[in-house]
Amino acid sequence: MNAFGPATKDKLLFTPGPLTTSASVKEAMQHDAGSWDGEFNSLVAGLRQRLLQVAGLTRETGWEAVPLQGCGTYGVEAVFQTCVPSKGKVAVLANGAYGTRMEQILDRAGIDHVVLRTPEDSPVHPEEVSDLLLQVPSVTHVAVVHCETTSGLLNPIECIGQVVRAHKKVYIVDATSSFGAIPIDFEESAIDFLVGSPNKCLEGVPGFCFVLCRREVLERCEGQARSLSLDLLAQLKGFDTNGQFRFTPPTHALLALNQALDELEQEGGISARAERYRLNHQILLQGMGGLGLRPFLKPEVQSYVITAFGYPQFPGFSFEGLYRRLSRRGFLIYPGKLSETKTFRIGTIGHLFPGDFQRLVQAIAAELTAMETQQCGSLKAETAIEPANK
Amino acid sequence: MNAFGPATKDKLLFTPGPLTTSASVKEAMQHDAGSWDGEFNSLVAGLRQRLLQVAGLTRETGWEAVPLQGCGTYGVEAVFQTCVPSKGKVAVLANGAYGTRMEQILDRAGIDHVVLRTPEDSPVHPEEVSDLLLQVPSVTHVAVVHCETTSGLLNPIECIGQVVRAHKKVYIVDATSSFGAIPIDFEESAIDFLVGSPNKCLEGVPGFCFVLCRREVLERCEGQARSLSLDLLAQLKGFDTNGQFRFTPPTHALLALNQALDELEQEGGISARAERYRLNHQILLQGMGGLGLRPFLKPEVQSYVITAFGYPQFPGFSFEGLYRRLSRRGFLIYPGKLSETKTFRIGTIGHLFPGDFQRLVQAIAAELTAMETQQCGSLKAETAIEPANK
Repeated sequence: MNAFGPATKDKLLFTPGPLTTSASVKEAMQHDAGSWDGEFNSLVAGLRQRLLQVAGLTRETGWEAVPLQGCGTYGVEAVFQTCVPSKGKVAVLANGAYGTRMEQILDRAGIDHVVLRTPEDSPVHPEEVSDLLLQVPSVTHVAVVHCETTSGLLNPIECIGQVVRAHKKVYIVDATSSFGAIPIDFEESAIDFLVGSPNKCLEGVPGFCFVLCRREVLERCEGQARSLSLDLLAQLKGFDTNGQFRFTPPTHALLALNQALDELEQEGGISARAERYRLNHQILLQGMGGLGLRPFLKPEVQSYVITAFGYPQFPGFSFEGLYRRLSRRGFLIYPGKLSETKTFRIGTIGHLFPGDFQRLVQAIAAELTAMETQQCGSLKAETAIEPANK
Repeated sequence: MNAFGPATKDKLLFTPGPLTTSASVKEAMQHDAGSWDGEFNSLVAGLRQRLLQVAGLTRETGWEAVPLQGCGTYGVEAVFQTCVPSKGKVAVLANGAYGTRMEQILDRAGIDHVVLRTPEDSPVHPEEVSDLLLQVPSVTHVAVVHCETTSGLLNPIECIGQVVRAHKKVYIVDATSSFGAIPIDFEESAIDFLVGSPNKCLEGVPGFCFVLCRREVLERCEGQARSLSLDLLAQLKGFDTNGQFRFTPPTHALLALNQALDELEQEGGISARAERYRLNHQILLQGMGGLGLRPFLKPEVQSYVITAFGYPQFPGFSFEGLYRRLSRRGFLIYPGKLSETKTFRIGTIGHLFPGDFQRLVQAIAAELTAMETQQCGSLKAETAIEPANK
């Protein structure tokens, strides 16, 4: 009855998150911590330090890690609600659902913005960004999604960042699904604000997000926030004052991230994790290729985080059918989100290993064959019945 | 070294939350659930149903439970950001830090408001609310905190609600720290929106909040939200559409609440839980009274959720000292938050039982004696040394 009972083995999550985490990350949540307590707040201070380390940054060189209650979208919204002044204008570089979500956030918050839209299979082109910034000099902030989870596409945040720097704009990167597995050169990219998540490539659990930012740029945002909960500067000042979250933190999720960062270190840091995900992705692509299933994107713009595949070309295929069949075998895949092409998605991040992808591909092969055969069977059955009724 | 390592026994949390939860609630988080998966979304649908049941409400009679990522403050802000139209005005009935926080939210969001301030030891008086609504007829919404955690004071939300109904205003109650242990008659109180938390009297873990509301009143708020993340109507519509959270939910915290609600049922529901908390509170008050420590509030307005005590009257007392000493014994108490009187607070909610409060009081007795004796000792020592130096 209970899919999540004590004796139930979890299905593996081939998704963009929340994803499969290690048993030890989940075990770290077997503790209740007091949000006011010194021991807990030492751990939070350590976490903020460690998030900067993962990014290759330090407080001494002017960087801060600001954890915030809520999911990645809250982090992106917090940056906009706090950092764009009332007369500011954001240029959103959009080529998928998460770029569109930035527009929705700005619409809802009444923040002026302009959108540079690129097709869902094409990365943002830095020269087009440069043209836009020349044409619309009133732009104050430029925002882009690093790994567009809609398709798995990677945007060239470093090259875009150099354009943004040349035009002296503030640069905001949503790296929710890439941070921790795709190396990012913050200085080279001229990033001012980067939004990350504990429950993607860091392999923690959901419950909060974090923003890595230049302290000096955030401090210039005094008095601008349109929301108390999502006031990023007030959140930073809260930590400055007493090391505490301003409001109740998700204590268990924070303990989980602490353990997850231990495990990232043990694995060998971002480069080793990237290697595992790359291998996961390679096995997936080879296997799916063998089944005639091709990724939506060209290889040169495809990340190893998540991949969108076109639907198989046989009449009885349905995503829901495949999903249910794989779910019964203990594998959860992910639906598509592209606006025009029908795809489904498979994530290659989380506590998953090459063997898991070999088993997944075998299961997909078996279930697609079964679906095709059943389809032929049911067509035959109909054909067989038809003459009898005549 | 690690205060939250696998072999470490947790300290008991005598706080207003996050609080001590049962081992089985924490065990429920030993699973990774897919946020898109049908099994998980059945559980979420069940949770929404069960939250209404705890409140004595049903969807059939027009009520909805809307869980939202973030802590209780996010829930309060979501109600304001979504439900107050641009020409609306909120009357905040404030007698503590959480009432003040409502003002801060409204200030930051640029929402017009007026404040009826009552001293921190006095409940809001319904007649004064009536006078205010007569004097300021432009008020559209009235907001109050049920249990003001600053002091532990209970506001008479039913009587206030009758005034609010008579004046045909929308009524918003922040019941973050009371929901689940203090029975609330929603119809009698004419509540439109009530904000609750899974990690207070429901004894789950932090990571989200929920709003119980009249569907029809929320539906009238179309197009008003000033935030995408905190758009309560869009969140409800998301559940309507596909049973899912719009954005990544804190899956583990949701599994924990499901278990916590099982345990609330097993205990006998709100009335049985209230009985345990009342007993916890009684033992605490008797014990502290024996030590000469008096609650800040008069008994008739004091909740059994949390109690503020004045500082003991001996020279060497410091809250930090007492906190550290009790922490070494495995008990975490809570600092005060009153604006003028020095107090510390002790929560009587969470997975704590009368025996825990007997042990806490014994520990406080022993540590206060030790602090007093040490103080006398150090005075004596100085006295003893002084003549030798002359």
